[in-house]
Amino acid sequence: MLTLDKIYHAAYVLKDVIRPTALVRSKIAPDCELYLKSENLQVTGSFKVRGSGYMISQLSDEEKAKGVIACSAGNHAQGVALAAQKYGIKAVICLPDGAPISKVEATKSYGAEVVMVKGVYDDAYKRALELRDEMGYTFVHPFDDDDVIAGQGTIGIEILNEIKDLDAIVVPVGGGGLISGVAYAAKHLKPDIKVYGVQAAGAPSMFNSVKNGKKEKLEGVSTIADGIAVKEPGDNTFELCQKYVDEIVTVSEGEISSAILALIEQHKMIAEGAGAVSVAAVMFDKLPIKNKKVACVVSGGNIDVTILSRVIKRGLLMSGRNYTLCIELIDKPGQLLGVSEIIAGLGANVISIHHERASETMDINGCYLRIVLETRNHEHIRQIESALTSAGYKLV
Amino acid sequence: MLTLDKIYHAAYVLKDVIRPTALVRSKIAPDCELYLKSENLQVTGSFKVRGSGYMISQLSDEEKAKGVIACSAGNHAQGVALAAQKYGIKAVICLPDGAPISKVEATKSYGAEVVMVKGVYDDAYKRALELRDEMGYTFVHPFDDDDVIAGQGTIGIEILNEIKDLDAIVVPVGGGGLISGVAYAAKHLKPDIKVYGVQAAGAPSMFNSVKNGKKEKLEGVSTIADGIAVKEPGDNTFELCQKYVDEIVTVSEGEISSAILALIEQHKMIAEGAGAVSVAAVMFDKLPIKNKKVACVVSGGNIDVTILSRVIKRGLLMSGRNYTLCIELIDKPGQLLGVSEIIAGLGANVISIHHERASETMDINGCYLRIVLETRNHEHIRQIESALTSAGYKLV
Repeated sequence: MLTLDKIYHAAYVLKDVIRPTALVRSKIAPDCELYLKSENLQVTGSFKVRGSGYMISQLSDEEKAKGVIACSAGNHAQGVALAAQKYGIKAVICLPDGAPISKVEATKSYGAEVVMVKGVYDDAYKRALELRDEMGYTFVHPFDDDDVIAGQGTIGIEILNEIKDLDAIVVPVGGGGLISGVAYAAKHLKPDIKVYGVQAAGAPSMFNSVKNGKKEKLEGVSTIADGIAVKEPGDNTFELCQKYVDEIVTVSEGEISSAILALIEQHKMIAEGAGAVSVAAVMFDKLPIKNKKVACVVSGGNIDVTILSRVIKRGLLMSGRNYTLCIELIDKPGQLLGVSEIIAGLGANVISIHHERASETMDINGCYLRIVLETRNHEHIRQIESALTSAGYKLV
Repeated sequence: MLTLDKIYHAAYVLKDVIRPTALVRSKIAPDCELYLKSENLQVTGSFKVRGSGYMISQLSDEEKAKGVIACSAGNHAQGVALAAQKYGIKAVICLPDGAPISKVEATKSYGAEVVMVKGVYDDAYKRALELRDEMGYTFVHPFDDDDVIAGQGTIGIEILNEIKDLDAIVVPVGGGGLISGVAYAAKHLKPDIKVYGVQAAGAPSMFNSVKNGKKEKLEGVSTIADGIAVKEPGDNTFELCQKYVDEIVTVSEGEISSAILALIEQHKMIAEGAGAVSVAAVMFDKLPIKNKKVACVVSGGNIDVTILSRVIKRGLLMSGRNYTLCIELIDKPGQLLGVSEIIAGLGANVISIHHERASETMDINGCYLRIVLETRNHEHIRQIESALTSAGYKLV
């Protein structure tokens, strides 16, 4: 059973396993006094090591001697692997064979035995349960387990230890282990605190379940926030969310990208999609937190670097920092100069220019000018467009 | 005059201005016990606010009433702007008009008055001195000033406060303000500690000057580490480096990119080029630190996100994580299958495939297969190449 005692015990036990993470003042959302709990800077790059670390520490000597098994392509795998290494026990991790090499290597680097399973997550999960039965390993559930939830709940204690009069905590939600632990701890320490959950709009399993008052399973999930792309909440976590979470909201892929970009630029921190949804919810005004003292849990930073590049690009577009202008010109001297003057005068930087002669759909004398600009924001883009239009240029 | 007293006084004064930054255990270099002093997570995203903060704090009331002026397109600008804001005084920053919008906006966001000057850094510098003379502002030098150096030196104190028996500190070097302060503090507290400096090979002004025993000015500089792209050391900093720095080494652009990538993947932290040179020197074995206890100062994180994308790409190539394979095939069925089997068998992920029919230089029946792969490292690439060659495929 989950108790505040158990969470405090987890905090005591985990001192040997985890790194204390900073609670950083942020100006990302100017309307509230915002703090970021930087669990992306946790060992293994995510909070997950707290839950698996505490769970593994509580195994009997017999269970420890046999070892543990888990199924995950991501943060949970690394958390289990590191925790097992710390306690000197064997860890086997089943991974679907499409898992990114970077994650496979990271898991191996903590000394775990990796079993690649043909197929998707569900296949790897099935194989993990088979191996558990065959070999006597203990299965470490990624979220639906009291000890795991207690481990994650230590984040709630740490946050309130630093800021006693906090008004709200905003937490990413996948299976619900993190928010269950944080909400349980926070509400028991400070009953009037608000705890808000955030899911990706492409994987709203807990959002739907809580809204409809019963556990629901999604057909499929689609989001860059792969760490919280969970089809179905746990039994325990669903119950705890119903009881202790004030509201769950969702954020779009573009909003998540913008939050990742803001964390890079304003805090020099990498967050993965799942880790940034809390910040996205605050940035895009999804929660009643104006003038409040709020902590966002940035839960992890394990994002594939090739995906990171794409996210940065999207974030720049979303925030009006990158803009492609296409102008139809009469093909005569001086046109490029005129356009250049207007753009320079308004303080935009030209990144690239592409000048194309007549296409089939155009007047034979016409040409296109395609200019990629670095801009300040959407307002700046509108200024540039209207200056060009006023000067007689035709935007297409 | 620089004294240990002054550096301790700076540490006391700066408590109101700066954020304590973590000293993080790192496995980036497995041969030594490495710690990262994460000044990229400092307010304004760089250590610079320490020097300007202390310098500004020591101005007379009359000087404060008139305000300060500085010239910089980067970290120094933001440091001066924030420090001036904290002490409630006016700051004017001269910027060359080609400065990235993101840096201009960041400087403005701390309340500084920004003067855009036509031309390059030297023009902006000249204008700043003119405005100083006209308006009576105090000029805040980016590095060649005792108070500025004392402020940067507080990093040396902080590091030794945390790890008393440290063997060496590795520090990025541009104008030399940071390393002068850190070396002065560290050598006075622990005379047997080694202090190493690192410059970009494309901007080796202090490296050359110390090697040749006299201050030298570079014709030009070229590096992604724009924060340390300084043509000439300061008088004070050159003297301090000669006296207190054990060795200065240089790192290449590729090495810097790899270090930035490693910090992202292993520590979820963004470093700018200048901030990552210390880590690059350790990663690429430029220093005699095997089995030693070493701290690297990661001095800043203000990298333009568009540059960041390019750096990630380069870092992946450098570390053998991304590889483009080009195979000449006989244009008959089953060839693609054969290649695919070999690649899959060796555990590489296919990112993209491009299949081209005969070019002018080839046999009319021939075709090219261009495959972009996600690989583990250079060794992995060699395995794939030799497996394909053994199977009779011709790599081009």
